[in-house]
Amino acid sequence: MKRTLIKETVKKIGEKVTLSGWVNSLRDHGKITFIDLRDRSGVVQCVGKNLPKVGPEYVVEVLGEVSKRPGNLINKDLVTGEVEVQVQKLKIIGEAAQMPFDIGAERLDLELPTLLDYRSLTLRHPRVQAIFRVQEVVIDAFRKAMQGRDFFEFQAPSIISSAPEGGAEIFEVKYFGRTTYLAQSPQLYKSLLVSIFERVFSVNKIFRAEPSVTSRHLTEVVSLDAEFGFINDYMDVKEMAEYTIKFILNEVQEKCSDELKMYRVTIPKVSSSIPIVKLREAQEIIYKRTGRDCRSEKDLSPEDERDICKWSLEKKGSELVFVSHYPTKARPFYTYPDPENPEFNQGFDLIGRGTEWMTGGRRINDYKTLLSHAKKWGVSPKNIELYLQAFKYGMPPLGGFAFGAERITMHILGLKNIREASIFPRDMERVDVRFSTLD
Amino acid sequence: MKRTLIKETVKKIGEKVTLSGWVNSLRDHGKITFIDLRDRSGVVQCVGKNLPKVGPEYVVEVLGEVSKRPGNLINKDLVTGEVEVQVQKLKIIGEAAQMPFDIGAERLDLELPTLLDYRSLTLRHPRVQAIFRVQEVVIDAFRKAMQGRDFFEFQAPSIISSAPEGGAEIFEVKYFGRTTYLAQSPQLYKSLLVSIFERVFSVNKIFRAEPSVTSRHLTEVVSLDAEFGFINDYMDVKEMAEYTIKFILNEVQEKCSDELKMYRVTIPKVSSSIPIVKLREAQEIIYKRTGRDCRSEKDLSPEDERDICKWSLEKKGSELVFVSHYPTKARPFYTYPDPENPEFNQGFDLIGRGTEWMTGGRRINDYKTLLSHAKKWGVSPKNIELYLQAFKYGMPPLGGFAFGAERITMHILGLKNIREASIFPRDMERVDVRFSTLD
Repeated sequence: MKRTLIKETVKKIGEKVTLSGWVNSLRDHGKITFIDLRDRSGVVQCVGKNLPKVGPEYVVEVLGEVSKRPGNLINKDLVTGEVEVQVQKLKIIGEAAQMPFDIGAERLDLELPTLLDYRSLTLRHPRVQAIFRVQEVVIDAFRKAMQGRDFFEFQAPSIISSAPEGGAEIFEVKYFGRTTYLAQSPQLYKSLLVSIFERVFSVNKIFRAEPSVTSRHLTEVVSLDAEFGFINDYMDVKEMAEYTIKFILNEVQEKCSDELKMYRVTIPKVSSSIPIVKLREAQEIIYKRTGRDCRSEKDLSPEDERDICKWSLEKKGSELVFVSHYPTKARPFYTYPDPENPEFNQGFDLIGRGTEWMTGGRRINDYKTLLSHAKKWGVSPKNIELYLQAFKYGMPPLGGFAFGAERITMHILGLKNIREASIFPRDMERVDVRFSTLD
Repeated sequence: MKRTLIKETVKKIGEKVTLSGWVNSLRDHGKITFIDLRDRSGVVQCVGKNLPKVGPEYVVEVLGEVSKRPGNLINKDLVTGEVEVQVQKLKIIGEAAQMPFDIGAERLDLELPTLLDYRSLTLRHPRVQAIFRVQEVVIDAFRKAMQGRDFFEFQAPSIISSAPEGGAEIFEVKYFGRTTYLAQSPQLYKSLLVSIFERVFSVNKIFRAEPSVTSRHLTEVVSLDAEFGFINDYMDVKEMAEYTIKFILNEVQEKCSDELKMYRVTIPKVSSSIPIVKLREAQEIIYKRTGRDCRSEKDLSPEDERDICKWSLEKKGSELVFVSHYPTKARPFYTYPDPENPEFNQGFDLIGRGTEWMTGGRRINDYKTLLSHAKKWGVSPKNIELYLQAFKYGMPPLGGFAFGAERITMHILGLKNIREASIFPRDMERVDVRFSTLD
């Protein structure tokens, strides 16, 4: 008999069904056994007499009849809470060893290292799975947003031949007797491709060898990148970034209501046009509101970020706010200096709920300016040959933005550690296995 | 005035438009200049008097009026061939150095190394771009096919902690004083995730350190991977692989008719059910047809692949054919041995037009069998801990398949070298720059 997915049982009251899945939890009352069966679509209660002995996480096939539960036994926490399945036959498809923790519990009360040591098991928990269901929607929504605006998706390379912006925090790869590197960003590739496809995006891995073990560091990140040409000014880039982030938040709102509920979070409130302030304006606002004088700093501190978000929510009704015009020297060589005040450039960050969500801006498109900036920033033209080639032979005004899939997922769900938002997180101390357990 | 895309000009006869793009080619007849202007949507002829001096690849903005060409001047090779734009004003947005070759030619007559040395420029040629427009559709179609069957998309890791199937042909990464590796396949991750999401797919980079410089080797490949559980037997996997490849071919057929025309190719003819033969059967067929006796070989040679394809087309009306049941020892440890004859396993390849398109099969899901196979194959259980964890705690019968985006693109367009099908190809001799030019 054809398999029925568990979420479909509610539509099959009185019918015979074959279910397949894992024993999420079970209660043995002598002859009668209650099994919460889990498949990719949900969980349903099954009840039967004299069933073969199974344990948690056994893979089973159940033949049974769907019946309506009596009113007083309806489980409102479960999508299938109004029904149960009267088991006629239970077949064991795969056995399971005894679980090291109770996967059937409403929450997994595990420390992060344990959560990751048992990644293959902890991911089975609906609350952990939910993170990646949200992330899938985030990435898919990014793709849809870009496709909706005629952007071309390209596959950014991971192995690169030189460390364009200096050798720090970059991984080395042994490459047939040479040294190559893992890309820290597809920036140069996406920019050069503007001269070919005009509008490009990519979903790709980037690698950061920062020797930090904070709650915000991963060595391998899924980067969502966009870049496009024929802009009038940096506000065109801000508009595209805004459209994209709103598109993503709307999709998450629509498609992940169960997951948002599970984490008791709402997506950020956003005004019809997300406010944008220059760094110096933001610092002035913070100074006036708090008396804290950061007006000559080259960046916002975490405290500043929280304060500018408070201002944005109170005064502009938006939990997200763009901050632009950072000191030119503090940003990469390709960032476009403001013509009216070249000490500051037309790069921006999107700050939300007190922390950075996205970074972007206008880039230099004039070949000579770009070349002179590269030299000033200590970037060897030889190391960015393919990139410069594109600019030497005709490049329109351009800009773009980038953000990490893990970071956005973390921010939306209010997770405390970015490792929770990476399905197989890599950091200084772990690549699947904890290094300390190997020594 | 709002920018009009070039392909829209055919709908705007008699209207004023602003176009932006690159000078694809130009012909200067004294006062009158003809410019073929190119943007992401196409090429259109512009004609004007006393225009500012421009050269090929200059980025310009054109203000002009669209007019119908006289019947005898219609260019049938161009989508916009029925119109031209009478230029009223031409503004230079970005200059271009003198091009090292004629990008306006119908074909770029360049050797592969030159094509790649000037990658940022050669990609501007419509015929080169077309390859990646097809590839984008291939990847997108794979994603849609999988989503249509309720597969979950995950982000497979690139950095791995050990070389699960031995150290050969794997890249080493320096990792905070340790050695890690670049993944050769997401096989173990996609398999373990079946115990969580049941049906998973990924579009991800894989890395091969094969020291070969053939027309079929890249060190960095975009792998399209799928894996799913609760199968009845390997034929379920064959069916899913068949559905996927047909879906992709149909999408390419529908969305890439211009590109297919440009390369004078058609998508492969496929029968309503793609034939599947066991290796030994295939060898018997080849022996009978050609007299060549390969009946005890453990794999098909390139010549065998061509012969079995000929048979498939002649006898079954299909340019694609599955070959299954390779010798168990010749395939990875996780491949499922045929219960009726465990010397052969339930892995398969999809062969098309004389060469391999895809590989897949059923996998072992029983923990003890898997463990004993791993040991027999010389794979240390310690190196595949997370993977084994998933199988130890309940795994349904499963299988899956994988194929390279570059290879499929190459096969569809009939390209001679796989490097042409990678936007920034990496091989033993090149990572953007040719290493020989560095020494």
